[in-house]
Amino acid sequence: MQYPEPIAKLIDSYMKLPGIGNKTAVRLAFYTIDMNEKDVTAFSQALLAAKRDLHYCSVCGNITESDPCAICADKGRDQSQLIVVEQPKDVMSLEKMREYHGLYHVLHGVLSPIEGKGPEDINIKSLVKRLQTKESVKEIIIATNATPEGEATAMYLSRLLKPAGLKVTRLASGLAVGSDIEYADEMTLYKAIEGRQEI
Amino acid sequence: MQYPEPIAKLIDSYMKLPGIGNKTAVRLAFYTIDMNEKDVTAFSQALLAAKRDLHYCSVCGNITESDPCAICADKGRDQSQLIVVEQPKDVMSLEKMREYHGLYHVLHGVLSPIEGKGPEDINIKSLVKRLQTKESVKEIIIATNATPEGEATAMYLSRLLKPAGLKVTRLASGLAVGSDIEYADEMTLYKAIEGRQEI
Repeated sequence: MQYPEPIAKLIDSYMKLPGIGNKTAVRLAFYTIDMNEKDVTAFSQALLAAKRDLHYCSVCGNITESDPCAICADKGRDQSQLIVVEQPKDVMSLEKMREYHGLYHVLHGVLSPIEGKGPEDINIKSLVKRLQTKESVKEIIIATNATPEGEATAMYLSRLLKPAGLKVTRLASGLAVGSDIEYADEMTLYKAIEGRQEI
Repeated sequence: MQYPEPIAKLIDSYMKLPGIGNKTAVRLAFYTIDMNEKDVTAFSQALLAAKRDLHYCSVCGNITESDPCAICADKGRDQSQLIVVEQPKDVMSLEKMREYHGLYHVLHGVLSPIEGKGPEDINIKSLVKRLQTKESVKEIIIATNATPEGEATAMYLSRLLKPAGLKVTRLASGLAVGSDIEYADEMTLYKAIEGRQEI
């Protein structure tokens, strides 16, 4: 016996999401049938709205409803600093901190020779163009992930932008706040010692 | 900075699903924005269709598009056996086996004094009524889960239905096929020894 078609289709849709396999998709689909109608309708509309109403900012590449995005449009923000991140969600994470008031640029990826991703496949061209026209920017803070690809991308950007007289910095590597030295891996400890600071 | 409203709403909707917390919901929402439009539209429609087109069979309580469901309507199925399960997805699991050709009855829950669920809160009344009018049924196979609540529900049904002259059986408990004795818990081993069979 097959699942009734409406539920089979819903299972297929759930399975397209990352990290959701067949068993979880079946569970979610049956749960959906028992949800109240209002929530399901809201969910259905939210999916369409997210796809329809959200775009990438033509200036920084962040996800936004308006173009340019709220951050790019806000003249009150510090126009001398610019953080480069991999993904729009990284902007959200940094904004949650409420300590940084400068600009952003979203690469939408990292350099990855294994996946065949070169400089022309991520938003580097638009970054260079932006820096050429926006002379107020003095410091580029590279906040790509602390992965091999993220590090490689940081090095690439540094070599690309430094000759233009820009200050290029990288987020510190070291122990996460609240973590134990005992459980830190060797690379993290090495980075933490290398970056040690006088107190 | 808040998430743009369309994405915040989508995160809220994802968080209403079981086992999906804030971090996963954020990840799924950002993933959705990068999905192709066709898949998102299909997902949105599947949600509405599952809610709109699926109903509970008025005879057995299983999920169905038509009423009565395909199993109840199929006169070719064995009308002498009836399996009682907790949820519609249990029917799907048993049907996948392709070895059982009788009828089903879905309780939509189990007896649970802790959650205040008594016999009148699950589909027992409709089961009794169905058995009174459908004299072809000779054996009731109780396939509630092997949990304390499932066992209690099985005992309750057994005491309720046996006086009517029905044969009431319960799925066997024991070692799962492919599992190691070493990792089996005490209760499972006890049930496996208790239910041992001559070979």
